[in-house]
Amino acid sequence: MTNWLPVWLREYQRSKLPGDLVAGLIVTAMLVPQSLAYAMLAGMPPETGLYASMLPLLAYALFGSSMTLAVGPVAVISLMTATALTGLAAPGSPEYVALAGQLALISGVLLIVFGLLRLGFMASLLSHPVIAGFISGSAVLITIGQAKHLLGVAAPGNGAIDILMHVIGALPGLNPTTTAIGLAALAFLLLARRYAASLLGRVLTPRAADLGARLAPMLAIILSAAIVHLFRLDQHAGVAVVGRVPLGLPAPVLPLPDASSLGALWAPALLIALVGFVESYSVGRSLAARRGERIRANQELAGLGAGNLASAISGGFPVTGGFARSVVNFAAGANTPLAGIISALLMALVVLGLTGLFRPLPQAVLAATIIAAVLPLVDIGTMRRAWRYDRADAWSWIATASGVLALGVEQGILIGVALSIGMLIWRTSHPHMALVGRVPGTEHFRNVERHDVETLPGLIAVRVDESLFFGNIEAVETRIRQLIAANPGTRRLVLICSAVNHIDATALEELTALEQELSKRGIELALAEVKGPVMDRLEPTELGARLKGRVYLSTHAAVAARAA
Amino acid sequence: MTNWLPVWLREYQRSKLPGDLVAGLIVTAMLVPQSLAYAMLAGMPPETGLYASMLPLLAYALFGSSMTLAVGPVAVISLMTATALTGLAAPGSPEYVALAGQLALISGVLLIVFGLLRLGFMASLLSHPVIAGFISGSAVLITIGQAKHLLGVAAPGNGAIDILMHVIGALPGLNPTTTAIGLAALAFLLLARRYAASLLGRVLTPRAADLGARLAPMLAIILSAAIVHLFRLDQHAGVAVVGRVPLGLPAPVLPLPDASSLGALWAPALLIALVGFVESYSVGRSLAARRGERIRANQELAGLGAGNLASAISGGFPVTGGFARSVVNFAAGANTPLAGIISALLMALVVLGLTGLFRPLPQAVLAATIIAAVLPLVDIGTMRRAWRYDRADAWSWIATASGVLALGVEQGILIGVALSIGMLIWRTSHPHMALVGRVPGTEHFRNVERHDVETLPGLIAVRVDESLFFGNIEAVETRIRQLIAANPGTRRLVLICSAVNHIDATALEELTALEQELSKRGIELALAEVKGPVMDRLEPTELGARLKGRVYLSTHAAVAARAA
Repeated sequence: MTNWLPVWLREYQRSKLPGDLVAGLIVTAMLVPQSLAYAMLAGMPPETGLYASMLPLLAYALFGSSMTLAVGPVAVISLMTATALTGLAAPGSPEYVALAGQLALISGVLLIVFGLLRLGFMASLLSHPVIAGFISGSAVLITIGQAKHLLGVAAPGNGAIDILMHVIGALPGLNPTTTAIGLAALAFLLLARRYAASLLGRVLTPRAADLGARLAPMLAIILSAAIVHLFRLDQHAGVAVVGRVPLGLPAPVLPLPDASSLGALWAPALLIALVGFVESYSVGRSLAARRGERIRANQELAGLGAGNLASAISGGFPVTGGFARSVVNFAAGANTPLAGIISALLMALVVLGLTGLFRPLPQAVLAATIIAAVLPLVDIGTMRRAWRYDRADAWSWIATASGVLALGVEQGILIGVALSIGMLIWRTSHPHMALVGRVPGTEHFRNVERHDVETLPGLIAVRVDESLFFGNIEAVETRIRQLIAANPGTRRLVLICSAVNHIDATALEELTALEQELSKRGIELALAEVKGPVMDRLEPTELGARLKGRVYLSTHAAVAARAA
Repeated sequence: MTNWLPVWLREYQRSKLPGDLVAGLIVTAMLVPQSLAYAMLAGMPPETGLYASMLPLLAYALFGSSMTLAVGPVAVISLMTATALTGLAAPGSPEYVALAGQLALISGVLLIVFGLLRLGFMASLLSHPVIAGFISGSAVLITIGQAKHLLGVAAPGNGAIDILMHVIGALPGLNPTTTAIGLAALAFLLLARRYAASLLGRVLTPRAADLGARLAPMLAIILSAAIVHLFRLDQHAGVAVVGRVPLGLPAPVLPLPDASSLGALWAPALLIALVGFVESYSVGRSLAARRGERIRANQELAGLGAGNLASAISGGFPVTGGFARSVVNFAAGANTPLAGIISALLMALVVLGLTGLFRPLPQAVLAATIIAAVLPLVDIGTMRRAWRYDRADAWSWIATASGVLALGVEQGILIGVALSIGMLIWRTSHPHMALVGRVPGTEHFRNVERHDVETLPGLIAVRVDESLFFGNIEAVETRIRQLIAANPGTRRLVLICSAVNHIDATALEELTALEQELSKRGIELALAEVKGPVMDRLEPTELGARLKGRVYLSTHAAVAARAA
């Protein structure tokens, strides 16, 4: 009867409830200000942030695989949503909201399809430095973009420099009250992050103090809303506020894109799906590892896909698993996705009864919340460490981060993807190979560059340390040709396949051509140490037939056969 | 004084001249009909095909690295040019010609930049089945597209099915004379390809007969032009002819794109550069291999880039090294790029004096030339062989070819690129690892699945058969976690790094986290057989410091340390 329920729910033990309850409560306290703030960042009406923090959490709880991931609106995905919809509709308009729903729907469908196609391994597409560079660049871009709300100025623009110039140009017209409130809130949030835990630690346990410090944003919005309401600062001092937020649950919608919006949205939806999955999966994986749990990439795709569909049909926008809230969820003791379900129910209570409280909330404080949340994501440390350890990795951090800043968030991630793929191809197209010789008096063969070994005239024995496939076969061939050119009297070439676990069609074709060419030039190609499964496939091919009698179990046998 | 000249020219020996002369002549005889035909395929005026067959050959001769590659207009690139410009300007119009020049210019600049960045290794991006599927699909698409010229009907359309439907729908209105000429020419060309060499072989040497058979297209255009001219078929029977082709060399132009055309053209230019490079490089490489010559990927990028720039400034369109003409050039005995220079000079003579002869040339015969040239490129054999050998490779042929046919040439190559990258990532994210045990009575360790070996309780020894980097480190970690979960009493995990030639920043970070996590769980991580260069980098890192005393020269030592 309950087989369709996820394992965690079927096997739920009451002992897990306190942890889930506390975590659900604390995450909700973070989620309220963040969902309003990220809706603003996405260019959406504030209530849609609340909507995106209900059903998606339920959907992920049913279909995801992480026990501690907190799904909902996150900064980078909200920024990507705003970028995708720029120029298609006016931010906050009904058309804009409909398009955001379509974006979530397309992303969700893509994620589910990828899950069904078992493409979870695509998470390995991006290297850590690329991800860190992307997140860092995005965090700076978001901060610059929020400066206008913080200062109460109008500053349109594209790209970091452009927005910054507009903000600076608009500075003379800043709203002093808004600026004061915004900077005070930012200072409060940054100081709270730095000192609240240790201050609270004097009266609370370290863990409680740590979690208590996470309530600072909630406190900031309550205080600032109260102040604005009390002194009517929105009317008397022109402080921009959130305004009326509709009460009640969202009406279900089905935001099906038409052909033209599908054409405009599929590419950004794909990028949002990719970034959302990679970010969420890496957070989920590192949290799961700390407890010896496991998360499955393909099920994560399904879980996040379900979350985005749920967001789409409940009037929300694209969501994913966020870093900060997931870490808090984990630290607060979440044992199962029930914590997320509790958050969703609490958010529903907020939507049903408390939205009136957000009316006087200053947008500047939401901007401060966003900035305080994204500033710690600027991860120069990864770049520094990479700079010392592996220059190519450091450059990929720099290129991705500068790409985001100079060209925008979509171009930035495309640069990161291109760099990662480029590095992948570069690496595979430079396979490790070793010219080997015999360790005197033994049957062992070792790299001639590292060991004192003997070689036979007219014989080249070369070991390839990787499987042969389209990505590296050309390099292997080139190296073999160079070795033959450097040893003019060569009569036999032994290819040692001890590390070859697969030969693909491209490599087979090239090896066949190489064998024919060498054979014409009077050089015999022989294979040694071919693994069983590789040999089984090779045997019925043309190359297998031509090589008959020249495939040896050991390198020693291949070399001895020559000497005979 | 002559240091700027390419090596082949500085060291030119007179003995190479006869081969180059003959090859230059024969390639020119192929180039005349093909350059007119491929101009038609590209939607360009006929003379631009001739222009694209002069300067680019000179530029490639100076900057390329292949001794036998024949550069100029080729079928697939001409199709891609037409696809890129569809909708931007009317085919054959001055705007269209200008855009085609810009496309060649952007492609050329991209190729040169890639060469300077030493991105020649990108040629490994596409597997053979993907390339074969792409070329096969394109050949069918080209054939279907040329049917309308062959039959003398108007049949617009996009995509193979669409065009085919239009052609069938237009059949009742076909021009009988055009159809007769076109089909006769096609029959002649196909029969010549099949039988001419053996017929000529009765009176000529096999090599001369083989080359003589290549003159069939030239004969077809001369004969058909003479017949149309004699019977005035263009006026009396409505046979579409090439018409007036301007006499004289092209005026030099500099087709600089403005911002809007740059925006529209950069992506197709990138695809044209990629396809042109991959196709040309694979032809050049296979020809060079047959003679023990070498071609260098980065210099090829520069040579093809120079060729495209030369085409752009002389009123041409994108060019690359073509398969058929290069093979003929090679077979005709071309020794150096002087053969190409001779072709270029002969083409200049044609442009200066003989363009009047092309006026009565029927377009249907050019279409027959194109179809006869591309049909042999349909390479079902590669797919069949792959089907027997490696199903994934066969599916990538099928997906790429169907992508070209169903969605078009640009989408087709994008599908091919995505598939190749997907397979690359899949392969790297599934690294080969082996749980090893000791061969009794020795210090050797072998895969437990293949050998009768002994393992120690509480100890897991696992060998990774690849370098560790962002593409595979997650899979390595997952496997290690599974092994530990399956062996609850584990106290020590030995990672055998005998095949690890590099550890990138991502892998380092993940290994550091893994070591900390295992250490918390009371499991000691040890490394064995770490190579010198890998150890040098590892030592100053956090992981290096934590692992101090737990890095062993041999697996035996790592295991013995545990037993002690």
